[in-house]
Amino acid sequence: MELKSELRLQLLAPDELAARTARITAAMRAAGTDGIVVSDNAGIYYLTGRVFCGYIYLHSDGRLRYYLRRPNHLQGDSVMQIRKPEDMTADIMAAFAPGAVGLEEDSLPYSMAMRLRASLPAGASASPMLRAARAVKTPAEIELMRRSGIAQAEVYSRIPHLYADGMSDIELQIEIERALRLHGCLGIFRIAGQSMELHMGNVLTGANADTPSPYDFAMGGAGLDPSIPVGADGTIIHPGLPVMVDMNGNFTGYMTDMTRCYCLGEPHPEAVRLNELSRNICAAVAEAAVPGAAARDLYELAAGMAREAGYAEAFMGHRYHAGFVGHGIGIEVNELPVLAPRSRDILAEGMTYACEPKFVVPGMGAVGIENTYVVRASGPAECITPAPEQIISLR
Amino acid sequence: MELKSELRLQLLAPDELAARTARITAAMRAAGTDGIVVSDNAGIYYLTGRVFCGYIYLHSDGRLRYYLRRPNHLQGDSVMQIRKPEDMTADIMAAFAPGAVGLEEDSLPYSMAMRLRASLPAGASASPMLRAARAVKTPAEIELMRRSGIAQAEVYSRIPHLYADGMSDIELQIEIERALRLHGCLGIFRIAGQSMELHMGNVLTGANADTPSPYDFAMGGAGLDPSIPVGADGTIIHPGLPVMVDMNGNFTGYMTDMTRCYCLGEPHPEAVRLNELSRNICAAVAEAAVPGAAARDLYELAAGMAREAGYAEAFMGHRYHAGFVGHGIGIEVNELPVLAPRSRDILAEGMTYACEPKFVVPGMGAVGIENTYVVRASGPAECITPAPEQIISLR
Repeated sequence: MELKSELRLQLLAPDELAARTARITAAMRAAGTDGIVVSDNAGIYYLTGRVFCGYIYLHSDGRLRYYLRRPNHLQGDSVMQIRKPEDMTADIMAAFAPGAVGLEEDSLPYSMAMRLRASLPAGASASPMLRAARAVKTPAEIELMRRSGIAQAEVYSRIPHLYADGMSDIELQIEIERALRLHGCLGIFRIAGQSMELHMGNVLTGANADTPSPYDFAMGGAGLDPSIPVGADGTIIHPGLPVMVDMNGNFTGYMTDMTRCYCLGEPHPEAVRLNELSRNICAAVAEAAVPGAAARDLYELAAGMAREAGYAEAFMGHRYHAGFVGHGIGIEVNELPVLAPRSRDILAEGMTYACEPKFVVPGMGAVGIENTYVVRASGPAECITPAPEQIISLR
Repeated sequence: MELKSELRLQLLAPDELAARTARITAAMRAAGTDGIVVSDNAGIYYLTGRVFCGYIYLHSDGRLRYYLRRPNHLQGDSVMQIRKPEDMTADIMAAFAPGAVGLEEDSLPYSMAMRLRASLPAGASASPMLRAARAVKTPAEIELMRRSGIAQAEVYSRIPHLYADGMSDIELQIEIERALRLHGCLGIFRIAGQSMELHMGNVLTGANADTPSPYDFAMGGAGLDPSIPVGADGTIIHPGLPVMVDMNGNFTGYMTDMTRCYCLGEPHPEAVRLNELSRNICAAVAEAAVPGAAARDLYELAAGMAREAGYAEAFMGHRYHAGFVGHGIGIEVNELPVLAPRSRDILAEGMTYACEPKFVVPGMGAVGIENTYVVRASGPAECITPAPEQIISLR
């Protein structure tokens, strides 16, 4: 174990790093916590601009120390190679003597948390502090999201060319996966929360859209196998029925989330009506999504519009109703704020969220759009997944 | 909250379920634990044949109860819909009155573990019990792995047809991803352990093979972006240099792991030599992989053969050396046994492992093969990823 200072691990510009840590240390001071240990990939990426295997210690005065298990070739100021977590805890206690250290309690496995706790004094959980800080994006983060949004929209514009006669939902999805990857999509889909997992997104059509899934996504689907029961199930794409495409927008480490509906031939009139309703809800929510707005009010606005249009039963699912209409997004697909009935989140400038008012109607399937937005200082939130929103013809 | 008994959640045959639970309950009795709570997707899939969001309680006498948060349409004997974890803990205490309950301490987040611990008496960790039980596959599990192995080998046989002149590593990888998916690959790649993540496998060629990664895989690679720094980095495939393909074999919920090397034109003579060495190591390890063999001895056998051939420096990496030559595999890609220097695992009939003796040589890249094997009652382990093992020509 040695402290090295030749090559630099730190990829973030100093101002950028300071902007990110300042939000976290403010929360630490409010909670009376002297330091936090960051351990999951999302947090490590947030504080360095790259993923490594190890930990970051952040002290409440803004000092950082990086403890790397792998790779072994990264060096830099305050970078220490460690073999085991106790190498880190000993160094933290010697260098900072903190009285209270917070852990990422919502992601750190119990056994590892207990191991760290054995030599670090307990502090408030770091998870809510990091979640709150990460919800408000810096201009540099927003720029990475804009790039993802443009790339995702470009691939979506080519979806009609990817369709071939007789295709099933999964066959179309595989061609979209390939087009996304060739356009630079990183493939990996980061999701917070135990038991959440997904491959590269979902294409849903027909009755399959009404199959509830175990995962806390807006829509379900039976999937191809009970080992990953979500999304496309091999249903042949049928004329007139909407094909909902909600695929991976991670091109830069920062994701955008975007859904559009496609149709073979003329869409069912009810699908057209519901797609318009979804667009109107997205626009109304964007108008209302100003700093200070309550996320729960945005949910109520969306749910109220669905109810007034007579589609409360179909809103966010039919046999199963998702409990939200939108969610924060960035490094992970389910960040703060959550646009949900009991959300306590308050919007702030620089927050990013995906809004996905979707409807499931038996016999017709799933319909609706999704865009990713940035909350601005004033005026409506800005859509960063700009693309035609009507139901798009596959043929 | 109500106990329902109309539709059946249980997808496993009763004998199959009993075979799986018997191994776990034996470990529970040995540890003096009255019950365990299974919470991660791999464990839930192991005990039901499908993934749901919720928990399973297994009592030491073999009784099971299923607590579902999502989806809401599954029912069956001993199935209970719950809204929060405390609905489950109250039911467990009322129905079973256990004196000690184990949790999956290596995967359950600290905050959730503490929430369960508040109303369940502490018991030994369930993680090692489940890991040990899952290491020994039932005939039904082996059959699912065989199906994955055949499908994976079929796709690999088509790789030369997927190559087009001038392709980069990632372009070839994307075509392999598509071919795998069209052949039924589920895409999702389950990995145990905090901070472990991967998209659909890796294609490595040239100097990129010598870039260490943060992840505990056999090989590294810089990747396309610092947010997921592993694997292909856009290197153009160069005549004479090996192209190592180590892609996703999850076709059934049970994975196989398989690596083959390809080459444009005649491979570098040292690549041919090392590929032969890798084949010989795989065969020697399979000969020695009989019930009762120590996994560490298998590692030493492999490392010794590499050393004797004069390739100790190149074995399992060059700038960074992976600490293992093989690993158990099944629902997740990193199960027991681990073929590593300090492993305490002892082989048993029905265990499955991947053996991947690989070499990295500066200026040449990565070379070596990987197969998945089943440990039999007697005789050498059986290869379930049968396919030509020489370096295969792309043109």
